[in-house]
Amino acid sequence: MIIVMKRNATETEINHMVAEVEAAGLKPTVLRGTERTVVAAIGDERKTGDLRKLESASGVDEVIPVLAPYKLASIENQTGRSVIQAGSLTIGGKAIGMMAGPCSVEDEEQMVATAKAIKAAGATALRGGAFKPRTSPYSFQGLKEEGLKILATAREETGLAIVTEVVSPEDVDLVSEYAEVLQIGARNMQNYRLLEACGRSHRAVLLKRGPSATVEELLLAAEYILDGGNHNVMLCERGIRTYEAHTRFTLPLATVPYLQAKTHLPVVIDPSHGTGHAYLVPAMAKAAVAAGADGIIVEVHPEPEHAKSDGFQTLDIATFEQMMADCRRIAAAVDREL
Amino acid sequence: MIIVMKRNATETEINHMVAEVEAAGLKPTVLRGTERTVVAAIGDERKTGDLRKLESASGVDEVIPVLAPYKLASIENQTGRSVIQAGSLTIGGKAIGMMAGPCSVEDEEQMVATAKAIKAAGATALRGGAFKPRTSPYSFQGLKEEGLKILATAREETGLAIVTEVVSPEDVDLVSEYAEVLQIGARNMQNYRLLEACGRSHRAVLLKRGPSATVEELLLAAEYILDGGNHNVMLCERGIRTYEAHTRFTLPLATVPYLQAKTHLPVVIDPSHGTGHAYLVPAMAKAAVAAGADGIIVEVHPEPEHAKSDGFQTLDIATFEQMMADCRRIAAAVDREL
Amino acid sequence: MIIVMKRNATETEINHMVAEVEAAGLKPTVLRGTERTVVAAIGDERKTGDLRKLESASGVDEVIPVLAPYKLASIENQTGRSVIQAGSLTIGGKAIGMMAGPCSVEDEEQMVATAKAIKAAGATALRGGAFKPRTSPYSFQGLKEEGLKILATAREETGLAIVTEVVSPEDVDLVSEYAEVLQIGARNMQNYRLLEACGRSHRAVLLKRGPSATVEELLLAAEYILDGGNHNVMLCERGIRTYEAHTRFTLPLATVPYLQAKTHLPVVIDPSHGTGHAYLVPAMAKAAVAAGADGIIVEVHPEPEHAKSDGFQTLDIATFEQMMADCRRIAAAVDREL
Amino acid sequence: MIIVMKRNATETEINHMVAEVEAAGLKPTVLRGTERTVVAAIGDERKTGDLRKLESASGVDEVIPVLAPYKLASIENQTGRSVIQAGSLTIGGKAIGMMAGPCSVEDEEQMVATAKAIKAAGATALRGGAFKPRTSPYSFQGLKEEGLKILATAREETGLAIVTEVVSPEDVDLVSEYAEVLQIGARNMQNYRLLEACGRSHRAVLLKRGPSATVEELLLAAEYILDGGNHNVMLCERGIRTYEAHTRFTLPLATVPYLQAKTHLPVVIDPSHGTGHAYLVPAMAKAAVAAGADGIIVEVHPEPEHAKSDGFQTLDIATFEQMMADCRRIAAAVDREL
Repeated sequence: MIIVMKRNATETEINHMVAEVEAAGLKPTVLRGTERTVVAAIGDERKTGDLRKLESASGVDEVIPVLAPYKLASIENQTGRSVIQAGSLTIGGKAIGMMAGPCSVEDEEQMVATAKAIKAAGATALRGGAFKPRTSPYSFQGLKEEGLKILATAREETGLAIVTEVVSPEDVDLVSEYAEVLQIGARNMQNYRLLEACGRSHRAVLLKRGPSATVEELLLAAEYILDGGNHNVMLCERGIRTYEAHTRFTLPLATVPYLQAKTHLPVVIDPSHGTGHAYLVPAMAKAAVAAGADGIIVEVHPEPEHAKSDGFQTLDIATFEQMMADCRRIAAAVDREL
Repeated sequence: MIIVMKRNATETEINHMVAEVEAAGLKPTVLRGTERTVVAAIGDERKTGDLRKLESASGVDEVIPVLAPYKLASIENQTGRSVIQAGSLTIGGKAIGMMAGPCSVEDEEQMVATAKAIKAAGATALRGGAFKPRTSPYSFQGLKEEGLKILATAREETGLAIVTEVVSPEDVDLVSEYAEVLQIGARNMQNYRLLEACGRSHRAVLLKRGPSATVEELLLAAEYILDGGNHNVMLCERGIRTYEAHTRFTLPLATVPYLQAKTHLPVVIDPSHGTGHAYLVPAMAKAAVAAGADGIIVEVHPEPEHAKSDGFQTLDIATFEQMMADCRRIAAAVDREL
Repeated sequence: MIIVMKRNATETEINHMVAEVEAAGLKPTVLRGTERTVVAAIGDERKTGDLRKLESASGVDEVIPVLAPYKLASIENQTGRSVIQAGSLTIGGKAIGMMAGPCSVEDEEQMVATAKAIKAAGATALRGGAFKPRTSPYSFQGLKEEGLKILATAREETGLAIVTEVVSPEDVDLVSEYAEVLQIGARNMQNYRLLEACGRSHRAVLLKRGPSATVEELLLAAEYILDGGNHNVMLCERGIRTYEAHTRFTLPLATVPYLQAKTHLPVVIDPSHGTGHAYLVPAMAKAAVAAGADGIIVEVHPEPEHAKSDGFQTLDIATFEQMMADCRRIAAAVDREL
Repeated sequence: MIIVMKRNATETEINHMVAEVEAAGLKPTVLRGTERTVVAAIGDERKTGDLRKLESASGVDEVIPVLAPYKLASIENQTGRSVIQAGSLTIGGKAIGMMAGPCSVEDEEQMVATAKAIKAAGATALRGGAFKPRTSPYSFQGLKEEGLKILATAREETGLAIVTEVVSPEDVDLVSEYAEVLQIGARNMQNYRLLEACGRSHRAVLLKRGPSATVEELLLAAEYILDGGNHNVMLCERGIRTYEAHTRFTLPLATVPYLQAKTHLPVVIDPSHGTGHAYLVPAMAKAAVAAGADGIIVEVHPEPEHAKSDGFQTLDIATFEQMMADCRRIAAAVDREL
């Protein structure tokens, strides 16, 4: 922690900061510059409370944290990057996982047909929502447990691992019975009760970044799950809110190499939400593979214009097949497997 | 709904859109321009599913919604703006409510002293968190029910209504026993189970805007609560995530007149989170009153630099007293009461 | 400058940084923490080149600047805040300046009538564009020198100081003949040749913040003008680009107290561009006065729906009169004069 | 143009809009819905003035433009996508151009050595700044014409086309003597005098997107150059300003497929400014190629930590060589040539 004093800070104010740093269990060092005095606080600032509150003390200009506040998710905490195995899905190492399927589970026949088609095209897991968090109370809210059963049937028919969203702590056990991967949606990234419940599950977790969350906040959300004892966490970039209006969200693919420098957890890209328009999805999936992503999650439906949700950003089967073929060529060009 | 066709759209593609609009229960009108053809869909598009999915049909360039998707929250749904009464707190009409207190409930003696001080300065409700959603799993998580009891004691001593956060649906009944106003934090604005549970409560709700939520999404979140039967909803602007780094969030005060043109619900401003720095709070509280806000919620603590959370954005008592006096003068200048 | 080393940085890498800091004319101090080593660089880092380039050296995790890079604009550079006098316009001190008028100069008769009306309502300067930077090459580009002559006539008739935009360095002399205040538009905030030309002018300058500029970049742009010898610079917040789509830009009024803590230069608010909708302008003008702004610049036209540019965000005369009356009451409530 | 009336709009207000649409030379159609009345304006709205000003008329809720306001840049204006040839550089078609070199031209010996090294690695053009627009007046401002001469020498030695920035209209002729490609920097994207001057040049233009410009504004800036008669325009995405702080800008690669759907002009990606950190550049260059970019422009310097500008985001020669080899493999996987 670096405490920058105001230019006219008094000795009393400086000494007060030295005392506060000591009280927090850190070691203070006073650096007297030609322009300003700085009080550096040496030690593990993650063990103390939030010292940014010292900014309200008199004579203080700014408090600058130095250490990232997450531990278990940090790349410094482990040798080598994590690989996650969940049924037919492998994420990390050489393997790139491809999770595909409709936004919402709609009916059994269609879901089984879709699962067979995406498997044939090369997908390694089936995604589909049974519990749907919807912006409007008047939108389709999902088939709930009936939807989970349909997903299980599709798995029996194809062998594909199931990825599905969980929206409430009390549903974690139920969803864990049916799915290999619990998805935590962007709107729930900071639903701490839900994170804690997933931390107690034995299922892998796909944690989506909130649309205005910093990457550090995403890692701290993962930390809640890791701290609960569940180490099978995948981080998913699905786009952030910016002033760009021609895409639904802005997909910052630099998140991939950035996260890979900071954490050992695998990184998944969602080009469907990340763009919001089906015609932009294949290019972004290909770019994600080239950038080094460990997995892709994408919305696919036999008839996007009749999908119950998210049709505007959903690929049809033929487009998905072409995209898979293209992504495979790029995966080979970056020495990965898909 | 306006469906803009591509320049080279065929008659078959245009006719397909006409059929889709009819299938959705809306009335299509085809407008043939010199440059493009547009299919307008007349009717209440909120009753149909999300027609933006038609964007995935061939020949379609863009689908533009025309009607706002909320109903109960709409200013067109009611004559006159809502006034909310919750114990000592009145929000709306001539009255501006002032909710003040520490970020977290810490101990009884301090809380009672703080409550007395802010009441003497003119606050009309006491805020304080017992259940704390925290970004890091290693931060102070709140005193929970013990904290609620402390708040109740402070109310007994001062008569101030209590505003406190609820973070999980199963806590709504418990918190409703102790508090006049249930606060839904920014991170939970789209926690739909929580919104539904608050919709069933008899307590007033202070709904905070998520830091990347659009104003329309905020109104749709309110719609969940209103649709559940609870009409005592206050909307709170607490800042959005932008590229500005010198403030914690960016506080867009234009939200006040904008919301007042779109909804009958009262509008509250939180200048503490909205700026993230104590020295910026008074100016923004004053500006909020001038802009027409119906209430202010602000963090106050006897010793900000020793607060258990958010000390950097918390006012001390003397600064709060000055701010109240200043806000009162401005309230009078805009014909409001504080 | 604080150089944070990677956890596994070697002694060679640390010594290399010490040498680089010395080579830059700063004094290095090595702080060895339990987690990381930090090399602090003491001295005026504004005199050296940009040391962030050291981030590309091996073993370095992050380079954090400590000092703000502007000098002449800094509040530490001067005792007391600047007051700017330009003809009938005073900005700063007790006085709040009110600059009003149409987006574009259109014709003489209308301009003189508008000037008389806004003067009667209490405006202290007349704004109007003769040189118009327009997003589209097909939009009205302004009357150029003919427009300047019309502005001069309006000044003769009313005594109001003229504020008008200059878009190119070679026009600075010409515009300086006609106007008391040279406006540098948001799109030209980092047009350094133009800043330098205005730095050589004897006219006051109204420098608008670019819609994605940081406040620090705004102060550095002002620094170009100050460094050229012109000290009559006003900073203007006119809104930033964010994901908010219901306003044209997002107007962050916290810029007012923030800038007043960092610089001695006066701060002006533009609620017209800052909201982009006429019905939101009066509330934001009032809020700006309450927040402590030193001036307001606002678009006013006798018939907004027939204005040649920006009609959607332009007030008619009657609305301006009401807004002036309201702002005056608020100015009095914050001990200012308007 | 779609004019959405307020729910309670009167017949007089609706008729007034009909008259205004006719006065603008468009054909009005009144659509009466169950909820609202909409006045659609048919015709080429780009030929009329900005009808958004009608939003200030009474009874109007919102005015929604339908047609994109650019023409010459539109993909509908031309059969096939443009290919640009400038000396050794080909951008578009099968060819991906690779422009590399230091941020600033520093000295001749170093520049020639750098040019030889990047050419050996496969670059097809040399970039380097002689005129430098710098945020701070205290930063290195470039060698100006001396820098252009050094670039010309490097071209003689290697045959590489020169890409260099022009910051002022009066420098366009001078720079055109030395360089094959005139670069317009992000800060000058809306410097209309400069755009017009480049429109009169016979040299190709690389137009960088401003960090808060919409894609539509970028296309309108290109329209200024095209409208001046110069059709050799490349559009460059170099990142936008968002709340992300771990990268200098956010690089939205979805701009590539989006622009390719809207315009025939080639699209170039700048991963150096787009990330601001050298260690993130190679992954983003690879992703850009996979996304379909027509060119890459990247900062390379023999000793980044001693570069006079932008060292933190500059690759050394060895890293560039590896990146080129990787990009070539990906180019082959997407049937392009590099």
